[in-house]
Amino acid sequence: MMVTTSPKPVLSELKAPTLSAQLPLEDVQGRPDSRGIALKEAGVCGVKMPLQIRQKDGTSQQVAATVTMSVGLPPQEKGTHMSRFVVQLAQWSRGKVLNLSLKSFIEEMANRLDATSAYVSVSFPFFIDKKAPVTDGSAPMAVHCALTAQLEQGTITLGLQYKMAIATLCPCSKAISEYGAHNQRAELMMNLRLDESAIDTLSLEDLMILGDQAASCPVFPLLKRADEKWVTERQYTNAKFVEDVVRDMALLLRVQPAVAGFSVRVEALESIHDHNAFASYEERLQA
Amino acid sequence: MMVTTSPKPVLSELKAPTLSAQLPLEDVQGRPDSRGIALKEAGVCGVKMPLQIRQKDGTSQQVAATVTMSVGLPPQEKGTHMSRFVVQLAQWSRGKVLNLSLKSFIEEMANRLDATSAYVSVSFPFFIDKKAPVTDGSAPMAVHCALTAQLEQGTITLGLQYKMAIATLCPCSKAISEYGAHNQRAELMMNLRLDESAIDTLSLEDLMILGDQAASCPVFPLLKRADEKWVTERQYTNAKFVEDVVRDMALLLRVQPAVAGFSVRVEALESIHDHNAFASYEERLQA
Amino acid sequence: MMVTTSPKPVLSELKAPTLSAQLPLEDVQGRPDSRGIALKEAGVCGVKMPLQIRQKDGTSQQVAATVTMSVGLPPQEKGTHMSRFVVQLAQWSRGKVLNLSLKSFIEEMANRLDATSAYVSVSFPFFIDKKAPVTDGSAPMAVHCALTAQLEQGTITLGLQYKMAIATLCPCSKAISEYGAHNQRAELMMNLRLDESAIDTLSLEDLMILGDQAASCPVFPLLKRADEKWVTERQYTNAKFVEDVVRDMALLLRVQPAVAGFSVRVEALESIHDHNAFASYEERLQA
Amino acid sequence: MMVTTSPKPVLSELKAPTLSAQLPLEDVQGRPDSRGIALKEAGVCGVKMPLQIRQKDGTSQQVAATVTMSVGLPPQEKGTHMSRFVVQLAQWSRGKVLNLSLKSFIEEMANRLDATSAYVSVSFPFFIDKKAPVTDGSAPMAVHCALTAQLEQGTITLGLQYKMAIATLCPCSKAISEYGAHNQRAELMMNLRLDESAIDTLSLEDLMILGDQAASCPVFPLLKRADEKWVTERQYTNAKFVEDVVRDMALLLRVQPAVAGFSVRVEALESIHDHNAFASYEERLQA
Repeated sequence: MMVTTSPKPVLSELKAPTLSAQLPLEDVQGRPDSRGIALKEAGVCGVKMPLQIRQKDGTSQQVAATVTMSVGLPPQEKGTHMSRFVVQLAQWSRGKVLNLSLKSFIEEMANRLDATSAYVSVSFPFFIDKKAPVTDGSAPMAVHCALTAQLEQGTITLGLQYKMAIATLCPCSKAISEYGAHNQRAELMMNLRLDESAIDTLSLEDLMILGDQAASCPVFPLLKRADEKWVTERQYTNAKFVEDVVRDMALLLRVQPAVAGFSVRVEALESIHDHNAFASYEERLQA
Repeated sequence: MMVTTSPKPVLSELKAPTLSAQLPLEDVQGRPDSRGIALKEAGVCGVKMPLQIRQKDGTSQQVAATVTMSVGLPPQEKGTHMSRFVVQLAQWSRGKVLNLSLKSFIEEMANRLDATSAYVSVSFPFFIDKKAPVTDGSAPMAVHCALTAQLEQGTITLGLQYKMAIATLCPCSKAISEYGAHNQRAELMMNLRLDESAIDTLSLEDLMILGDQAASCPVFPLLKRADEKWVTERQYTNAKFVEDVVRDMALLLRVQPAVAGFSVRVEALESIHDHNAFASYEERLQA
Repeated sequence: MMVTTSPKPVLSELKAPTLSAQLPLEDVQGRPDSRGIALKEAGVCGVKMPLQIRQKDGTSQQVAATVTMSVGLPPQEKGTHMSRFVVQLAQWSRGKVLNLSLKSFIEEMANRLDATSAYVSVSFPFFIDKKAPVTDGSAPMAVHCALTAQLEQGTITLGLQYKMAIATLCPCSKAISEYGAHNQRAELMMNLRLDESAIDTLSLEDLMILGDQAASCPVFPLLKRADEKWVTERQYTNAKFVEDVVRDMALLLRVQPAVAGFSVRVEALESIHDHNAFASYEERLQA
Repeated sequence: MMVTTSPKPVLSELKAPTLSAQLPLEDVQGRPDSRGIALKEAGVCGVKMPLQIRQKDGTSQQVAATVTMSVGLPPQEKGTHMSRFVVQLAQWSRGKVLNLSLKSFIEEMANRLDATSAYVSVSFPFFIDKKAPVTDGSAPMAVHCALTAQLEQGTITLGLQYKMAIATLCPCSKAISEYGAHNQRAELMMNLRLDESAIDTLSLEDLMILGDQAASCPVFPLLKRADEKWVTERQYTNAKFVEDVVRDMALLLRVQPAVAGFSVRVEALESIHDHNAFASYEERLQA
């Protein structure tokens, strides 16, 4: 899928310097350091890369990922070897598929960098086909995901962040008004610590369904008139504060076998203010 | 209001290079260029600067501005002198007040840079105190403004961009549903070409009132329960598509003596979708 | 590639409203409007959608696009039918490939919406494999592209925006300093008006090569030590102001048969300032 | 400084609903909740507000702040009273000055909301006048600050986040190249836990000086030619990896009496890549 375009022939027409004979080049990163400070992280961030992500049905989806990769740096080393991160990433980009578990990915990182601690985050919009509630229309909708892994003292901690749009309708506004009730788009953000032994029971697709259950109403990419009526009435009959959505989401996440701990945050783009209302909850996340 | 902290004493303790004797330093920007291409703009952007903006009542408001300043560059000149822009900006930052008209500001730019064409944009959040509709609460609310000026062939064109939050409630959703109607925060964006001779009749404060008139309902920084009831019911009784808001805003702007031309764009953060609905209109903007 | 997950079964367990018998539902958008204002645009923006983009070698690349679609609205119509845009987009998402020309896409839009003017913008990160200059390493690098089309009075205007990272090294800093010269990442932004008859001579891959030629030096996703030496020395021997890059890029674009008009802007993230330096040029863009 | 513009008179000309006689309006937030879930946070975020921040010299600087305010919510309460946050904020906006310690601010929050846990973050660009290194030019430069306070189980934890631009020059590039060395703008991010008993020894102005000491070279808002020579040569003679900057910053922060714990992160906008290099360190932050 990637084309190989080599800019070198063109560039070499310009006054490019020739490589001098001073090779081998010194490994400056490998110089000793005397400050006695072990760094928590040294690495790269903001690396854009096309990657393949495993879908629920076993096939994969190509995503445009933004990646952070780092390792801990011992006190006696001056710097890390940043190009090795991109070498690994480029190799995975050429055909390997990432699961929700980045275990093997981070183990490979630690090996390549000869490191005992490491961190990786792979963040991307993931598209899930969503059906309209009444008519038969459907279209892909993006949810924003990030898979993370942390290696520390021999233990790997796996995480998953998930941000999706939902709707909330204000119970107070509904109760005190003669007619109508203010409603708005809201962002539902889940931060999950994963239990690797049960990770096969979890999918990005199912997380969208859970989020939609906790909302006043889901949002949809494609709605015909009969759908819009359904959505409007469902919002109105299902009024929820951000606090309610967080609590309902917590109840839903508690019983997921793959979720070892989680935080939930809902942020509503209030239609009556130019600022947002939010609520958050956290459970077994640091355990 | 600005403190003067000189980092130099501290820095000179480090291994700072001493200035060599090769002064005067060559003006590389002043070298001739043979490509025969006159540039439309050469300048600086993303310059953060505290500035004073004239308010309706004659006093000024300090704002945190982001500034773009540029001049046209004749074909025979290699580069422009970028530091002169910041010298001017820093001087204005120390006590001068900007009006809605940047005429004298851009004339000074053209003089300093010895240029015949120039462009400036001063962009900032501007705070306007906004009263709740029923109770006596009030609080500042930010609207995002940008003042612009363009000098070309001896003529100065003055502009004002204005972005504020409003609410829209969907007439279709209201008409087809048993109860409720989807509503949402929306962004109202006005781009005005100003008639300098009437510029005193215009204020950032009045533009907020015009925008609120065109909306299904204004948004507010502070609402008590009685206000929330008012807002909910006003939204519901005043359903408007983005198309309606744009048309009503156009009618309001047409009769402003200071507005020589304008475009309006409304973008609604639909509470039923994860994307936005928008409409736009343009009148006498290029004249 | 898209999985089909229907949230409806889950949601219907909740207190969902049943559809009332009042169908057919009124077409509120079709109501007459008496304000006499024809809108320039009414549509959707911020629609995220996976799409296939034609590559130089004839294969396609899946991208995560952000789409704007709109039509002009006659004065007598109250609103447009926003869902039709997403219906078309979802259909294209399921297997059709977009060329650099959106001609057939915008013609389909105008037909579906029964409109005489229309606008579409499809914006996405596009990955191109980029080889290191000395070693044999290579990795995908993202450039940000937007394809646009505008239909007005029977004429379709095709556009292409292209933003890529390059490096610039300051000629002034080099000339006046004993050693070293400040350099930085810069953003090269091209806005092209396309000549459809020659559009096959243009590719996103070739545009990256052109941009790299105009820079002090290209940037790369993956560099080993020998590459870093090459890049450092090439930057230093090829000092360019933003003004120089814009002029060189203009010379390169002028001779492209598919480019009917263009603007170029280069913005350098100056390593000596917290603001950017920029230059811009425009040629035959409004013709 | 704030003008009071009441939009009500204008709006009431439109078809505004009249307040019905059903007052007093029910306090829906006060309804009981049976899910048994205590929320970590319920509040508002993204609130824009002009505030006064204490400067080193005892005067205050008006800033355009973005504020988050929340309280913990006991399991038996359905929702919090969001308007009380904005009431407090608007009062502080009218003349009260915030110190680096938000102790009294968060105590007031807890009282107003009748809460035992609370959180506040006040984020803003802060302008500090910065002198050129050689000539006598100077101009304000923005650093991004956030003051935070957290109340939990009777204890208040004070924090300060600080983000400023610096420059780094790569030691590896310098060592292996015949001439030149790649350099770039970088972001230095400090996250400080404050010791309130020594907070008077700390100022935002001094933090900028510390950051400049840790850099390869400071960045400046205004540089004449002699300054640019100084900066170029200082960068070159003071090559530092992001790892070096983090370590040097750690050494500088360790000896600050007001800093009870900290993390440092440096992110360099590499001029040879389209991604960033970063390093981070953490000390006594969770203590």
